[in-house]
Amino acid sequence: MSDIINQLFETILSRKGADPESSYTASLYAKGTAKIAQKVGEEAVETCIEALQGNKEKLTQESADLLFHLMVLWADQGLTPDDVFKVLESRIGVSGIDEKNSRKK
Amino acid sequence: MSDIINQLFETILSRKGADPESSYTASLYAKGTAKIAQKVGEEAVETCIEALQGNKEKLTQESADLLFHLMVLWADQGLTPDDVFKVLESRIGVSGIDEKNSRKK
Amino acid sequence: MSDIINQLFETILSRKGADPESSYTASLYAKGTAKIAQKVGEEAVETCIEALQGNKEKLTQESADLLFHLMVLWADQGLTPDDVFKVLESRIGVSGIDEKNSRKK
Amino acid sequence: MSDIINQLFETILSRKGADPESSYTASLYAKGTAKIAQKVGEEAVETCIEALQGNKEKLTQESADLLFHLMVLWADQGLTPDDVFKVLESRIGVSGIDEKNSRKK
Repeated sequence: MSDIINQLFETILSRKGADPESSYTASLYAKGTAKIAQKVGEEAVETCIEALQGNKEKLTQESADLLFHLMVLWADQGLTPDDVFKVLESRIGVSGIDEKNSRKK
Repeated sequence: MSDIINQLFETILSRKGADPESSYTASLYAKGTAKIAQKVGEEAVETCIEALQGNKEKLTQESADLLFHLMVLWADQGLTPDDVFKVLESRIGVSGIDEKNSRKK
Repeated sequence: MSDIINQLFETILSRKGADPESSYTASLYAKGTAKIAQKVGEEAVETCIEALQGNKEKLTQESADLLFHLMVLWADQGLTPDDVFKVLESRIGVSGIDEKNSRKK
Repeated sequence: MSDIINQLFETILSRKGADPESSYTASLYAKGTAKIAQKVGEEAVETCIEALQGNKEKLTQESADLLFHLMVLWADQGLTPDDVFKVLESRIGVSGIDEKNSRKK
């Protein structure tokens, strides 16, 4: 099921260089990194707020918006989902507290 | 590769109800939804900042931190990655601009 | 010059209960606390981004937007600028590091 | 009462170039713009969360933290409170909705 991430990322990548009028993703690339990063921050704020209101339906929608814009940011900056998954993978099996402590040093 | 999401989510779920001293994830559940949501917001801010500084290595790390805390928030609120992926899937193939416009109505 | 804060806050307070169509401030109250808080978060994200881009003109504008929405949040929650200024005042003269350390305990 | 803003800003300015060990403010300048901006974003997230939880005492504290770090960002970027107050002043008396609409054009 989570192949959806790679499939969506392919779609996002394919919009690079496309006419900004042709899709929302292409319009984000055209606006530049600062605007894409701003959208990530704004969607995260909305995600926080829906979580605090206990609205599961809206939390799902805002989480999807956050992931989508995060992936556009990765594409814009030359990262892939696998780059991020590798970091996540290295943390599985490690006690979270130990990992966090060691990372902060 | 993106099965890592489901695998990590299983690990996150398994920490529910564990001793807060035993892992960072368990300590987050113990602090409650507001604190978990706060971490999502803070990691998103850090992600924005690393993107604007063009620091790919740190952007990868912060993106992983953001995803991790977002998944803890999902677990805390009774959502699964698949709930979110279904929303993302429904958007593939839809022109982003059209989709965004229709969603905002 | 900073009496502008109190003067603006009076204006903001006076819009409470007004027709949401009559002013932007009145429309914010009508949308509720979650939406006002969301605006505070979003304007802070924009403020961060303009600072990182070194755009002084836009940083000034976004800082004003942030302060404005923060004051609407105070009005919505029954706080006054003086409530917040009293906290700030108590910190002047205290070494920031000492103060921060003592507060976090 | 709001002269506290100017007084606090003077104190903040006076820490520029000071030993980072000597005060929290001096340590922020030493860490640079990105770290100061990050603190503004993080304090805004905390402010949002306390507002949504209806915790007036903590909202007051977090609002003060947000204002403090925002003023450090102004000092770091060569802005003054008056620069921001002038923008706020220009908006008083203008219907918020009209003002917002005209600004976005």
